[in-house]
Amino acid sequence: MLRAKEIGVEDQLSAAVRRVRKQSETLCEPLAIEDYMLQAMAEASPTKWHLAHTTWFFETFVLKPFAPRYQPFAAEYEYLFNSYYNRVGPQLGRTRRGLLSRPTVAEIYRYREVVDECLLELLAQESHKDRDLIRQRTELGLHHEQQHQELFFTDIKYNLSQNPLSPIYLPLDIPLTSSKVTLQWQSFEGGLQTLGYDGEGFCFDNELPRHQQFIPPFALANRPVTQGEFIAFIADGGYQRPELWLSDGWAAVQSNGWTAPLYWRSDGDNWLLYTLHGLVEPDPLAPVCHISFYEADAYARWTGARLPTEFEWELAARERTIEGHFVNDGIIHPRGACNAADPLHQLFGDVWEWTASAYAPYAGFTPGSEAVDEYNGKFMCNQMVLRGGSCATERDHIRPTYRNFFYPADRWQFSGVRLARSL
Amino acid sequence: MLRAKEIGVEDQLSAAVRRVRKQSETLCEPLAIEDYMLQAMAEASPTKWHLAHTTWFFETFVLKPFAPRYQPFAAEYEYLFNSYYNRVGPQLGRTRRGLLSRPTVAEIYRYREVVDECLLELLAQESHKDRDLIRQRTELGLHHEQQHQELFFTDIKYNLSQNPLSPIYLPLDIPLTSSKVTLQWQSFEGGLQTLGYDGEGFCFDNELPRHQQFIPPFALANRPVTQGEFIAFIADGGYQRPELWLSDGWAAVQSNGWTAPLYWRSDGDNWLLYTLHGLVEPDPLAPVCHISFYEADAYARWTGARLPTEFEWELAARERTIEGHFVNDGIIHPRGACNAADPLHQLFGDVWEWTASAYAPYAGFTPGSEAVDEYNGKFMCNQMVLRGGSCATERDHIRPTYRNFFYPADRWQFSGVRLARSL
Amino acid sequence: MLRAKEIGVEDQLSAAVRRVRKQSETLCEPLAIEDYMLQAMAEASPTKWHLAHTTWFFETFVLKPFAPRYQPFAAEYEYLFNSYYNRVGPQLGRTRRGLLSRPTVAEIYRYREVVDECLLELLAQESHKDRDLIRQRTELGLHHEQQHQELFFTDIKYNLSQNPLSPIYLPLDIPLTSSKVTLQWQSFEGGLQTLGYDGEGFCFDNELPRHQQFIPPFALANRPVTQGEFIAFIADGGYQRPELWLSDGWAAVQSNGWTAPLYWRSDGDNWLLYTLHGLVEPDPLAPVCHISFYEADAYARWTGARLPTEFEWELAARERTIEGHFVNDGIIHPRGACNAADPLHQLFGDVWEWTASAYAPYAGFTPGSEAVDEYNGKFMCNQMVLRGGSCATERDHIRPTYRNFFYPADRWQFSGVRLARSL
Amino acid sequence: MLRAKEIGVEDQLSAAVRRVRKQSETLCEPLAIEDYMLQAMAEASPTKWHLAHTTWFFETFVLKPFAPRYQPFAAEYEYLFNSYYNRVGPQLGRTRRGLLSRPTVAEIYRYREVVDECLLELLAQESHKDRDLIRQRTELGLHHEQQHQELFFTDIKYNLSQNPLSPIYLPLDIPLTSSKVTLQWQSFEGGLQTLGYDGEGFCFDNELPRHQQFIPPFALANRPVTQGEFIAFIADGGYQRPELWLSDGWAAVQSNGWTAPLYWRSDGDNWLLYTLHGLVEPDPLAPVCHISFYEADAYARWTGARLPTEFEWELAARERTIEGHFVNDGIIHPRGACNAADPLHQLFGDVWEWTASAYAPYAGFTPGSEAVDEYNGKFMCNQMVLRGGSCATERDHIRPTYRNFFYPADRWQFSGVRLARSL
Repeated sequence: MLRAKEIGVEDQLSAAVRRVRKQSETLCEPLAIEDYMLQAMAEASPTKWHLAHTTWFFETFVLKPFAPRYQPFAAEYEYLFNSYYNRVGPQLGRTRRGLLSRPTVAEIYRYREVVDECLLELLAQESHKDRDLIRQRTELGLHHEQQHQELFFTDIKYNLSQNPLSPIYLPLDIPLTSSKVTLQWQSFEGGLQTLGYDGEGFCFDNELPRHQQFIPPFALANRPVTQGEFIAFIADGGYQRPELWLSDGWAAVQSNGWTAPLYWRSDGDNWLLYTLHGLVEPDPLAPVCHISFYEADAYARWTGARLPTEFEWELAARERTIEGHFVNDGIIHPRGACNAADPLHQLFGDVWEWTASAYAPYAGFTPGSEAVDEYNGKFMCNQMVLRGGSCATERDHIRPTYRNFFYPADRWQFSGVRLARSL
Repeated sequence: MLRAKEIGVEDQLSAAVRRVRKQSETLCEPLAIEDYMLQAMAEASPTKWHLAHTTWFFETFVLKPFAPRYQPFAAEYEYLFNSYYNRVGPQLGRTRRGLLSRPTVAEIYRYREVVDECLLELLAQESHKDRDLIRQRTELGLHHEQQHQELFFTDIKYNLSQNPLSPIYLPLDIPLTSSKVTLQWQSFEGGLQTLGYDGEGFCFDNELPRHQQFIPPFALANRPVTQGEFIAFIADGGYQRPELWLSDGWAAVQSNGWTAPLYWRSDGDNWLLYTLHGLVEPDPLAPVCHISFYEADAYARWTGARLPTEFEWELAARERTIEGHFVNDGIIHPRGACNAADPLHQLFGDVWEWTASAYAPYAGFTPGSEAVDEYNGKFMCNQMVLRGGSCATERDHIRPTYRNFFYPADRWQFSGVRLARSL
Repeated sequence: MLRAKEIGVEDQLSAAVRRVRKQSETLCEPLAIEDYMLQAMAEASPTKWHLAHTTWFFETFVLKPFAPRYQPFAAEYEYLFNSYYNRVGPQLGRTRRGLLSRPTVAEIYRYREVVDECLLELLAQESHKDRDLIRQRTELGLHHEQQHQELFFTDIKYNLSQNPLSPIYLPLDIPLTSSKVTLQWQSFEGGLQTLGYDGEGFCFDNELPRHQQFIPPFALANRPVTQGEFIAFIADGGYQRPELWLSDGWAAVQSNGWTAPLYWRSDGDNWLLYTLHGLVEPDPLAPVCHISFYEADAYARWTGARLPTEFEWELAARERTIEGHFVNDGIIHPRGACNAADPLHQLFGDVWEWTASAYAPYAGFTPGSEAVDEYNGKFMCNQMVLRGGSCATERDHIRPTYRNFFYPADRWQFSGVRLARSL
Repeated sequence: MLRAKEIGVEDQLSAAVRRVRKQSETLCEPLAIEDYMLQAMAEASPTKWHLAHTTWFFETFVLKPFAPRYQPFAAEYEYLFNSYYNRVGPQLGRTRRGLLSRPTVAEIYRYREVVDECLLELLAQESHKDRDLIRQRTELGLHHEQQHQELFFTDIKYNLSQNPLSPIYLPLDIPLTSSKVTLQWQSFEGGLQTLGYDGEGFCFDNELPRHQQFIPPFALANRPVTQGEFIAFIADGGYQRPELWLSDGWAAVQSNGWTAPLYWRSDGDNWLLYTLHGLVEPDPLAPVCHISFYEADAYARWTGARLPTEFEWELAARERTIEGHFVNDGIIHPRGACNAADPLHQLFGDVWEWTASAYAPYAGFTPGSEAVDEYNGKFMCNQMVLRGGSCATERDHIRPTYRNFFYPADRWQFSGVRLARSL
């Protein structure tokens, strides 16, 4: 999303601000005002709140500290739209975001307008004594907003799906995958490797520092597990066989009554998948999606394989071109492997790939001590790393070193699985 | 609300349909579209849902059975907007009403328009073979809609109150009560009395049949308990003294952390009351409101008095003129006693008065066996009767025999208390 | 249990103390020490706790106030074994009673021994200035202990039933009912009646004051509903038809998954009933038992009848001899009607009969203001009255005016149903 | 516990069976029968259940498959005392273990006796065709039983602690630590290391396979964090400062109301610690104990240090003598560092040390496919590794490669913390 050429030149950062901020609003165009209010579970924030919170981020971390004459748009927003930054102050409980009918959607758009204007004015001050920090925080804010653009899709999908009318975000024909890619294993020697981000552009703090990992020889599947393969797992009693599951996974299957991935509906004979583009039949050759870590792990055990570690994944990905289906294509649903030259298909895009790695700090990681530094470090417990981006990710937002993370029972992200084996 | 002269003459019923149905929409005028979506607790339905459900009632019980050419506006509405009529079919879970961003508010208004038009057309068919039943069901539907108009106020009040911004439904100055009415006791001989509705107009089935009750001599307070009196109860440790409370009431105090009526907020020194017209200081001479049965009962015990039974209340009320503050005045908040000739002030309007009577069928009560008859009978357990209407009730909707009922812990209605004593 | 001749003469009260207190211990003889610890739900207190709490009652309300030289057996017991008397002080949470492995069972028996000895010594002081009050409190304590003897059975039954081994309290053959009593209706004229206790012996405060009730003509079934009849209700889909149920009852059916009375187990084809004497097949002619008020009410609606009010029941019962199966027979399970001269069978014993009456104070009821007076009044909300005693009640403990009360969803008491009709 | 010389020679294994099995019963000697029943939370199993389950292990995995003439002691025990082995069959829900008053304690001791006898007889069959497997499973069963001996202590401590009487397991004076060990840092070069068990004796499957890890240079504290140091953390507002906590940790602090380690009680001015030997004042020089991973992590952050990874810990521990306080000393409470020659004190014994490592399979780990192989692998998610054993561990049970694991919020184990730093 953030085109390389924009970053680093002043007007390019301003242009990126305009473009990314505009994009958040473009995504909302198909919605009715009523849709902006939905919060069907604690984790699936209302669209309104995403629009306001991303604005709050710039207001709180850029305008308030660095634009002395900036008048806060509304004092209460500091509380209402703070997500989890304890060092900024207390927050509205996450489950209560859907109760904010006021400020209205129109007021939040005005909030965005005012903050954008002030932000651009601040960026134009070439001699500002904190110019570097302002630009750095602004860039972080843009990447933060891109993350919320992906959450916009996952959250509105979940929220709309709870309506018995199965409302469609955007009517669209999703093309079926035409050519089958046979499962093959790509071998890697591994060894003592240095991992983590080493480019010159932006990365999140959790991708650093560069550090060494010893990786034994392994093989990676040439593509993600497909819907057709997952249907075979279900048909083989996958959801009824405790021996395939981690203990906590089996408990989740039973307490939640899982019998298929999220959004899969059965009329007894056939599956229908709820998508942002309407109900569709499964595409047997397209990646399976909306599965938890537990389901990914059980599927792998069923096949005799396992999940890759995040280090294996990064080793395989770091030399590769970023190819796959992204949000930029306008289809917010994973599709089958493209006919690419690279033997490893779809490492990027389509579905986030669950790894076997618990989300933890890299050796030497130390988060900063300012409020804005609560970004990543404090979540490094109880979650699992996913890699590679999805059909709801901006193509320019993803990197080989990018670490996403969710709880092992989470299913509302575009999460899938690629198999690995030890050699 | 349903003026007597309208009922019984054909065009008058149609006029009532127009007027009552229009009134529901007038009440919504101060709302933003976003406000229509709010459901902050299971019991506080979204405004959208009230508008649709009251329409569903006419569609289901009048149009579908009696207008053979009527095409249902949308097949799914039968499920979405059924409240609890099991004989009609299954219902969307009550807690999920706030998840319906679709149909939009605009679509629900169209639904109302279509149903109204068809209903009026049906009412105009003078020779319809089911004409009497159609008119009877229509009349029931109008009273049903008036009940939801009161719920509109209690629900939107609760829903807006959960927003830290304390949004105001309609800005308005609530006049302070100017003259004090000293508490006095009005005596009644009681005896064997025949109670229940015996007029010729409409009443709900739970007001019937007329039946006999023996009532020992008693006295009734000449007005409801005031905010000033309730402040004294709080100041005397009323919420900290278990001996004043029913066992279940004390459990509710502790598990909910009650320290004052609902909507009362303290800054340590002073109380502020959240109202539909903004935050106001208490009016010491106006009735206390938004208290549970448990609080009403504990207050009564604190004074050495008790709550009246619903039969005592009806005996006192049945000969009286209906005077008090109603929704017709445009102020949705209770006010102090008016300077009336009647020694018993405000039996009607201002606040519903909790009685000591559990909601139960009158001797000989038998509900009908059709779906529409699920109206009252099946709720005759675990709830307490309230009498007299409130500031959110239409003046023409209330009667001396009218029985309202809520669970003893409910506080979001305009519920208050009048004391009684045995003689 | 308290034989009339004992009460009123001093040594007779002491004899009653000895006998009733001994009886509590006799009931426990079949138990293993481990059984005394069980508390499988909050309401089903451990046997240990019953033995201690009934002792606490005498210690707290007789010895501490009236025996100045009495040294409390253990200071902590005041807290540990107080059930709900807030005016005595705070209490161990009810759900935590099963966590008291100490004091051991042996220590509680010693506690009983010490308190009994001191109590008998106090009763022997003929010239004690509070002699009347001491005797009155002692008598209350004995009736209180008899209530806990019934709870001993209902609680240990529930607690043992949760063990997959279905342990037997006391092995015993329960005789099958041999002769069928055809359902017949006994008519009563009703009218203005004076109800409540008017004898000279003991009664609880909730049976007073005598007061008038107007009762319309009604008929009462000549016996309780039988297991055979209830099997027909189940077979007719009784638990699947919402139209038969109160709204709260239907919610209870669904959230609890009820498909039969408590302790009924199905192997698909046949029912087995867990009893204190082992698993037995249903006895079609014996009263159905362990049903909630909701099930009683749904059954009545299914037949077109209703539940009697507690006033109808008392009117029918007050002139009758107390006949039926009681704990004194040693079989803790209801049996079929005996071949009695009275056309109304089994008003007493076998099963408590749910009435249509919410538990409420009689007109003029005012509980005292001492701690011991928290006995009944504060529970007069949300519960329904049951009448007549059960197979777990002492024959001498029951009276026509005796009011028992439980929540409408409670099923672990020996609760059944007798039908009524309006005439 | 399993002395090296015993293992490998036949009669030595039988001797170990006798000794370890006897030890489980010796630990119970101070208990009253009532104590065996306690289960105050799902995780804290009753003593009875531990005694039965460890027996079930030998019956299920040794006797049933390999002793063809063995008659199961009681068919239902297969269900009642199975912990979580899904391939054996369904299990009694864990929260229901405390409901098993039957079989009685005496019957469980008989069960132990019968199983022990048959096991010893089987071990004596020198020519049994499955002799190796029998011996291997028996050895596993003994280590399993030793783990439950530690759980016996942690569970009975939790269960007794819930009694307001604070019962004492075994009265004993816990000696205060006399000499202070100043905090110092021991440096390690790290590098590419091979870790995991490589001895010839027993180890659990999760300690294998040997595999390589790259470890950057680090330093380890020379002793665990002390109670005195933790009191300073509390006094500095440690439990009130969200910036010190992981996000999930802060949520745990708030929802559980944590203000100190488990079992710490404050009378406002002073702390008292509930121990198995009675209430004691803190020993400022002894290790802090009964803290969650979250508290360990927050404490480390407060000091500017961090937790060690399990690999750092193993590297430091693997060359060392196993010294510290173990259950063998008879004092089930951690004590201060001994005056040892080794600069690293108490790596073993006293308190389990939380590491920064999520519990995960070592590279190449593959659990077997038999029921007994459900031992470790299926728990490798959501838990954190602890190392080193505690004051409740048998000295001979622990190894440098031993991996214990609990959820990050768990506090009822003897869990403490040792600090680490990156160099």
